[in-house]
Amino acid sequence: MSPPVSQVVVVGGTHGNEMSGVCLAKHWLQDPSELRRKSFTADILLANPIAVERCVRYIDRDLNRSFSHELLSASASESDSYEVKRAREIYQKYGPKQSSLNFVIDLHNTTSNMGTTILLFKGDNFALHLANYLKTKCVDPSFPCHILLIDIPEQGHVHLQSMGKHSISLELGPQPQGVVRTDVLARMKVLVNSSLDFLDLFNQGTEFPSFEAEVHQVLHKADFPRGADGEIQAFIHSELQDKDYLPLKPGDPIFQRLNGDDILYNGEKLIYPVFINESAYYEKKVAFIATEKKHCFVPALKLQN
Amino acid sequence: MSPPVSQVVVVGGTHGNEMSGVCLAKHWLQDPSELRRKSFTADILLANPIAVERCVRYIDRDLNRSFSHELLSASASESDSYEVKRAREIYQKYGPKQSSLNFVIDLHNTTSNMGTTILLFKGDNFALHLANYLKTKCVDPSFPCHILLIDIPEQGHVHLQSMGKHSISLELGPQPQGVVRTDVLARMKVLVNSSLDFLDLFNQGTEFPSFEAEVHQVLHKADFPRGADGEIQAFIHSELQDKDYLPLKPGDPIFQRLNGDDILYNGEKLIYPVFINESAYYEKKVAFIATEKKHCFVPALKLQN
Ligand SMILES: [Zn+2]
Ligand SMILES: [Zn+2]
Repeated sequence: MSPPVSQVVVVGGTHGNEMSGVCLAKHWLQDPSELRRKSFTADILLANPIAVERCVRYIDRDLNRSFSHELLSASASESDSYEVKRAREIYQKYGPKQSSLNFVIDLHNTTSNMGTTILLFKGDNFALHLANYLKTKCVDPSFPCHILLIDIPEQGHVHLQSMGKHSISLELGPQPQGVVRTDVLARMKVLVNSSLDFLDLFNQGTEFPSFEAEVHQVLHKADFPRGADGEIQAFIHSELQDKDYLPLKPGDPIFQRLNGDDILYNGEKLIYPVFINESAYYEKKVAFIATEKKHCFVPALKLQN
Repeated sequence: MSPPVSQVVVVGGTHGNEMSGVCLAKHWLQDPSELRRKSFTADILLANPIAVERCVRYIDRDLNRSFSHELLSASASESDSYEVKRAREIYQKYGPKQSSLNFVIDLHNTTSNMGTTILLFKGDNFALHLANYLKTKCVDPSFPCHILLIDIPEQGHVHLQSMGKHSISLELGPQPQGVVRTDVLARMKVLVNSSLDFLDLFNQGTEFPSFEAEVHQVLHKADFPRGADGEIQAFIHSELQDKDYLPLKPGDPIFQRLNGDDILYNGEKLIYPVFINESAYYEKKVAFIATEKKHCFVPALKLQN
């Protein structure tokens, strides 16, 4: 049982070189008619306009790691980075998590072969219902839907989407940074429109029955093999490349050296890697993110006025 | 008839986020043994080390457009951009075109589906022989070989490779910026090694017979449709995406608007687009480069001491 959704924010350009969200945000800022529903009109936000202008991920620091309680609550200073200033501006407008129900939809691309990834925080059953709706209504074999669950306590949240009472990020790929692929763009447009349809149906009293969700829950991050100088010594193995969400067994090749030598996965249990070879994660020392596949029961959802 | 090749320079990191060349240059700087042949040892150059460190294409301006006669011969000034200073340093070491024969191999990646593209200047029959050798010796259906010919008078040359008496650039793709795909990396390594083999065979007196080359010669650049404000209004059509080197007929779709409307190719003759949706060319106002397919006769090549 939930109160009605009073505010919906669609965010593009949180990363300035992830072009599907950048294009859609610019388009909807000029003509927001597509974002109107019976029970609300979604707000549209271009989150990092200077990064968008320069077509880079960020200017000083990753905006999508700048929504920590610590950064948002610290007193402002001249020397604050551009993204910290921007995070505070955005949070003042759309956060803090209000008693009224707001929903944040943050639009991203990845260079990894992750199809339609719906990223949400563990425990957000409202967002799981939305994800389930997208999985059912927006079937497209070119961009299969996956639900990726982040399980960290709320006080550890740093993503832009965490300012919403409920939220999802859409991660569509593969798409190189700075490139618009029209198939990815069209897919993102459909997903946002269907998300708004779901929220409107909810506001109008539609009951969404309970269901069992198949999710991938983040286990840990895996770095590239590096030398003492920090230089990467082996890269994603061609047998792992593009295999996001597929099972990786102990003994399977994961990295390859320039001399052709393989490095095998020496973990003890089967994992499902995602964000394999994501361009933006080299600097974060992440070659891929290990997940486990889980099933979780999601209770029915219905408006309570 | 040609004198022996006295100097070979293999260049990586001319663009700091094109990772195949960056990786190979770093690797060979540490261990150049693979670059030794009977008649020479190739030099290895990391062309734009600061751009490589920051994983960006360039710092101030495109290094691969900074080798113009005008820039190289102008008197140095404090206010010169980093890349102009760097171009002069490189040119002092490896240019100007000496009477002795030097060969430049410049390593690039593209986000476009261009397989193995061997880029060379019209009239460089020596480079055409090398390209033909690679086409014959390095068959790999995943990265089919294409010869891309630039037909501009020598005084108009601005590319790094133009400092060589003879030269090729290797453009391998698709690969996102900042990403190492091991299949692309392995392919680049094979191509450089075979290029050195060819140059060594030539120096040892091997005669390379005449042949007819199939080449794609650059016709013109095509920009995206833009509004009065300069904003792009339509992107590469999904039917054109990834179709580099395939024929495009008058009436075929080339761009698509966000509302789904198609924009058709209204030229009068069949063209072969390349660099379709290359990430780095958005800022250069290039959506693709139109080429024509030609055949040219290349006379036999043999050493003359
Ligand atoms: Zn992103
Ligand atoms: Zn390049």
